[in-house]
Amino acid sequence: MGSSHQINITMRIWKSLPLFVVATSICLCFCRAEDSSMENIVTEKKAEESHRQDSADLLIFILLLTLTILTIWLFKHRRFRFLHETGLAMIYGLLVGVVLRYAIHLPSDMSNATLSCNVNASPATLLVNVSGKFYEYTLKGQIGANQVNNIQDNEMLRKVTFDPEVFFNILLPPIIFHAGYSLKRRHFFRNLGSILVYAFVGTVVSCFIIGLLMYGCVMLMKQIGQLDGEFFFTDCLFFGAIVSATDPVTVLAIFSELQVDADLYALLFGESVLNDAVAVVLSSSIVAYQPTGDNTHTFEGMAMLKSFGIFLGVFSGSFALGLATGVVTALVTKFTKLRDLPLLETALFFLMSWSTFLLAEACGFTGVVAVLFCGMTQAHYTFNNLSPESQDRTKQLFELLDFLAENFIFSYMGLTLFTFQNHIFNPLFIVGAFVAVFLGRAANIYPLSFLLNLGRRHKISPNFQHMMMFAGLRGAMTFALSIRDTATYARQMMFSTTLLVVFFTVWICGGGTTQMLSCQKIRVGVDTDQDHSIGPDGVDRRSTKQESVWLFRIWYNFDHNYLKPILTHSGPPLTTTLPACCGPLARCLTSTQAYENQGQLNDDDSDLILNDSDITLSYGDITVSTDASGAHTSGAPVGGMGMNSDDALDRELAFGDHELVIRGTRLVLPMDDSEPPLSLDSYRHRHKPETMS
Amino acid sequence: MGSSHQINITMRIWKSLPLFVVATSICLCFCRAEDSSMENIVTEKKAEESHRQDSADLLIFILLLTLTILTIWLFKHRRFRFLHETGLAMIYGLLVGVVLRYAIHLPSDMSNATLSCNVNASPATLLVNVSGKFYEYTLKGQIGANQVNNIQDNEMLRKVTFDPEVFFNILLPPIIFHAGYSLKRRHFFRNLGSILVYAFVGTVVSCFIIGLLMYGCVMLMKQIGQLDGEFFFTDCLFFGAIVSATDPVTVLAIFSELQVDADLYALLFGESVLNDAVAVVLSSSIVAYQPTGDNTHTFEGMAMLKSFGIFLGVFSGSFALGLATGVVTALVTKFTKLRDLPLLETALFFLMSWSTFLLAEACGFTGVVAVLFCGMTQAHYTFNNLSPESQDRTKQLFELLDFLAENFIFSYMGLTLFTFQNHIFNPLFIVGAFVAVFLGRAANIYPLSFLLNLGRRHKISPNFQHMMMFAGLRGAMTFALSIRDTATYARQMMFSTTLLVVFFTVWICGGGTTQMLSCQKIRVGVDTDQDHSIGPDGVDRRSTKQESVWLFRIWYNFDHNYLKPILTHSGPPLTTTLPACCGPLARCLTSTQAYENQGQLNDDDSDLILNDSDITLSYGDITVSTDASGAHTSGAPVGGMGMNSDDALDRELAFGDHELVIRGTRLVLPMDDSEPPLSLDSYRHRHKPETMS
Repeated sequence: MGSSHQINITMRIWKSLPLFVVATSICLCFCRAEDSSMENIVTEKKAEESHRQDSADLLIFILLLTLTILTIWLFKHRRFRFLHETGLAMIYGLLVGVVLRYAIHLPSDMSNATLSCNVNASPATLLVNVSGKFYEYTLKGQIGANQVNNIQDNEMLRKVTFDPEVFFNILLPPIIFHAGYSLKRRHFFRNLGSILVYAFVGTVVSCFIIGLLMYGCVMLMKQIGQLDGEFFFTDCLFFGAIVSATDPVTVLAIFSELQVDADLYALLFGESVLNDAVAVVLSSSIVAYQPTGDNTHTFEGMAMLKSFGIFLGVFSGSFALGLATGVVTALVTKFTKLRDLPLLETALFFLMSWSTFLLAEACGFTGVVAVLFCGMTQAHYTFNNLSPESQDRTKQLFELLDFLAENFIFSYMGLTLFTFQNHIFNPLFIVGAFVAVFLGRAANIYPLSFLLNLGRRHKISPNFQHMMMFAGLRGAMTFALSIRDTATYARQMMFSTTLLVVFFTVWICGGGTTQMLSCQKIRVGVDTDQDHSIGPDGVDRRSTKQESVWLFRIWYNFDHNYLKPILTHSGPPLTTTLPACCGPLARCLTSTQAYENQGQLNDDDSDLILNDSDITLSYGDITVSTDASGAHTSGAPVGGMGMNSDDALDRELAFGDHELVIRGTRLVLPMDDSEPPLSLDSYRHRHKPETMS
Repeated sequence: MGSSHQINITMRIWKSLPLFVVATSICLCFCRAEDSSMENIVTEKKAEESHRQDSADLLIFILLLTLTILTIWLFKHRRFRFLHETGLAMIYGLLVGVVLRYAIHLPSDMSNATLSCNVNASPATLLVNVSGKFYEYTLKGQIGANQVNNIQDNEMLRKVTFDPEVFFNILLPPIIFHAGYSLKRRHFFRNLGSILVYAFVGTVVSCFIIGLLMYGCVMLMKQIGQLDGEFFFTDCLFFGAIVSATDPVTVLAIFSELQVDADLYALLFGESVLNDAVAVVLSSSIVAYQPTGDNTHTFEGMAMLKSFGIFLGVFSGSFALGLATGVVTALVTKFTKLRDLPLLETALFFLMSWSTFLLAEACGFTGVVAVLFCGMTQAHYTFNNLSPESQDRTKQLFELLDFLAENFIFSYMGLTLFTFQNHIFNPLFIVGAFVAVFLGRAANIYPLSFLLNLGRRHKISPNFQHMMMFAGLRGAMTFALSIRDTATYARQMMFSTTLLVVFFTVWICGGGTTQMLSCQKIRVGVDTDQDHSIGPDGVDRRSTKQESVWLFRIWYNFDHNYLKPILTHSGPPLTTTLPACCGPLARCLTSTQAYENQGQLNDDDSDLILNDSDITLSYGDITVSTDASGAHTSGAPVGGMGMNSDDALDRELAFGDHELVIRGTRLVLPMDDSEPPLSLDSYRHRHKPETMS
């Protein structure tokens, strides 16, 4: 059983973190004798041996990742798009798994000699009196009677098996945070309504459809006697929840390489990111569904309601927490001028983002979900307060963590197909699961798209729908949720099946993305920002206006007039937006830069509209637009203070998006101790190299 | 005893890594029952509770670090130099330690109820049969009979105590790697001989002086009956080894802020970095000193010789390994053109550097030492092959890791003064230790400086010597080595004393650095690079030539003619330096850029000499020098191919150094898929913004 030596295993995974980490098992056998005896030396030798073995094991994984990186480079170099890096990592993992399983036979480790004694309780700590000396033991978990012999076997396989919780608590958070932090906000907000519907309604629909279908499948299996253990309806629902979390990595990597239509990108990305969060909370609510009394595993209204309450509570709690720490970070970075020291700023940003996770876990919420919304808040507010250097640093740091964590998960996924020791592959269940996953995705996309199209101006075209259907890959989140608990028969069967679903979707759907795109005649090579400026300016804005729901519009106005000025250096000064009675508070909260922006421009829309190919400076009352060819066009006067928040929405989204798109551009900023340059100046500075190139 | 709940504790530290890491203890009590019973639910609840508690504990540390960062910013903002960030972190740690120790009283945890059973062996795994169910327990370690009761107590204090090995295996490696990677190579190599003497001879001298003095002190204590346990000569030597590791962080931070004389900086930094490595290997050799037979702890020639052999073997092995992985990374980055994809490049660099540590540990060498030399190799070769973006990324990544690890160690140091439960403060021993540390440092610096001055042209002046004496702070390495084993009476007393030595030196010596500098009349505000060009060009070069030992000169020629061309894109093509018989091999190994450099410049010194304030382009046969004011000066013709390796030494060191000095400068590079620009072009591009500003 993979999780028997759990502590030992847990330690092994910590070592694979992006730090030079090792040597945990030394402490396992660290003897604390008062006098240094020969016995002590023997134990230390043993510990050293085990430590060396651990280092060697971990080295395998590092070399695996290194190999993956080199092959990815080769593929990208040769523009080979049929296999994405995640698929590749899985293949390498599979190969190593095969080698470990069939090629390497280690002599069984005799140090694990088991010793049974009958007692009446199972305390967390056990003191064993061995001929006068006390040894401390810790509880690792209960073991089925049939697995007692198993523990001594397969030492080698267990050595490369990590603790399941590790995936959920170490590797997922950076991935999810990065998703939130790198969200392309303009197109995300333009399609916010649709994304929310797909993510919330769609995931719940998909979960229940899959759960019901699988329950039917399980009933059938029971009828024909193919079911060797218990499989309850809640298990089926749980399976539905975990396989409803779609993973965007593979498809979106190809999308951004081919520059696929930005709206399709936003729909898929937004849905994938949010439905991960929904699926996590949904699955934990289903686990929490515990009907009272003896009739467990039957339907009960009260318990159902309680589960629903848990879902709402955990989701909104995590959401609020993520938002809160993001806001705190924004305030700290705004009021401390920490931007003079990018290292400190980056460290602070990192620690605050991490504390979101800890805070959520400490409060009993879901850290992963909190981290997602924290990432979004950081991108929306804090990012604007950071020094340009820190903006680069934080993006690059989380990009690296995301890359390493993702490839590690996928290569481990490949490995685990052979090294996991309790696989239950049931053909009927597997076929049922594939059908259910397909139907669940269809029941999510097509009906909801139909409903959404009733309200949308820009319809979601049928080929977009087919593409979304096709792009519903399952990845890291599904794996992490399914490996989290593999104790029961049902869970083991689910895990094995999930693994196959992930393999199939990543290899087949991921590999076929390019074909599917051309088959569906979806336009590629679209510049995200040119797309925005294709039509006459007014048309484009109108479409944004109509597609944004009124609720969002209210929020946007609130955000623009109050939140942005409070949390960042941009936006109109609070003194102009808050009622007069709040004057002193407003003066206190508004940064000097906001005043300067206003004084200089006499216009509260001091944010520039910047695209990759043209630069528009809002100066005074006229808009001077400089495109790449150097031609100057004089635009219509920009409106006064009261009526411009709608225009500002478009601008800001465009601007904010641009901020996040910039990659190869860096700027030279004098690193003196004086005040940082004004935001306008710094922006102009910043984009100078771009216009020159 | 802090290390009783070692596993639990280990887990806690892993969580404090720069990743969103938590929830380990869930797996501690993860029950694996086949049927989900109420018992299971209770266990899960307990595990969840414990997980929440862990998250809250870790949150304390994160908030502590956050607070430190904010205060550091305030100090830097106010130019307050009497307390460095490390000293500050210690103070905050102390405060939290006091609160945890005296203010918080948790109800004792009843889940740890102990249960003793008499058996005859202590296997690593224990199966306990509790009324028919099997529970698995793991050995954590032996416990002294007097500590059996202690285990239940002080739950809270143990909760914030990390496993000692963690410091050595997780937090030190990034610090040490960063030291190697950010070494200012020009001044380091100029003073290489002196640095090696200080680091190797000096550390051994200091170790033995301190060891002998402490042995005298211990003898005295035994005489007057103040010694309550055993304290052998090897323990004294061990103490000597660990407190001989000086920590440059605090002093060098002030040095670089004040721009102190570069040679003094290089001497101190080089010595501190290398003597850490020497001290680690020395201390492990002393531990390995085990005289055979019954007369342990007495002197024996054979065992001494064996220890010396271990020292040499481990040091050279670690050195070779670090070098080897560095070289492999250089070759990979040279021949794959991975530089097109900075993310992959950075990830590869990170993984390869990490694998050095694992490889060294797996081979039984010292990972920390291997990582130091790996860092140096990476800086010398691989760094030149990286894309400019990756150069920034890798530097920033390790800078961040270094910063976080360092501040964590120092704040934990403060915390541990109150939370460590086996402190033994012996006034006589402490006074003796302070005297011994002072005398040991003096015996290191003054005699060796006298000897070195006999051979040096640039003498190490008395005020430099006093400054080096004063700047011998003890820090992270000393702490990590002393907390690694606190099992015996002697080690506990050493640990407590070491803690006080660290506190004293960091606060008093660190805080008094500015005063000491002005007291010793050491010139500050020296630009490292202007320093180089103060005298006429010839003089400066001559001084380098004379101070570099002949051995180094031979190595440099070898490096310049063979290693650099093989491992990087710079240097003369191998076809010109290797004998004709190796032609095909040479052609294969020489990169196209090396040929192009040669063809374009007709000069194998294509490296530019670049300083912050002036730019010198070696073009064809004349040297065009552009200083900040824009004046052009025409230099003497640069020599031909055969006679220039001496000149190239200065140039390359200056150039390499400059590469590492650049901070605020970034460049715009087209991110297309074509060949990366030639090195000359990219350098010119790169420094354009600097000349403009």
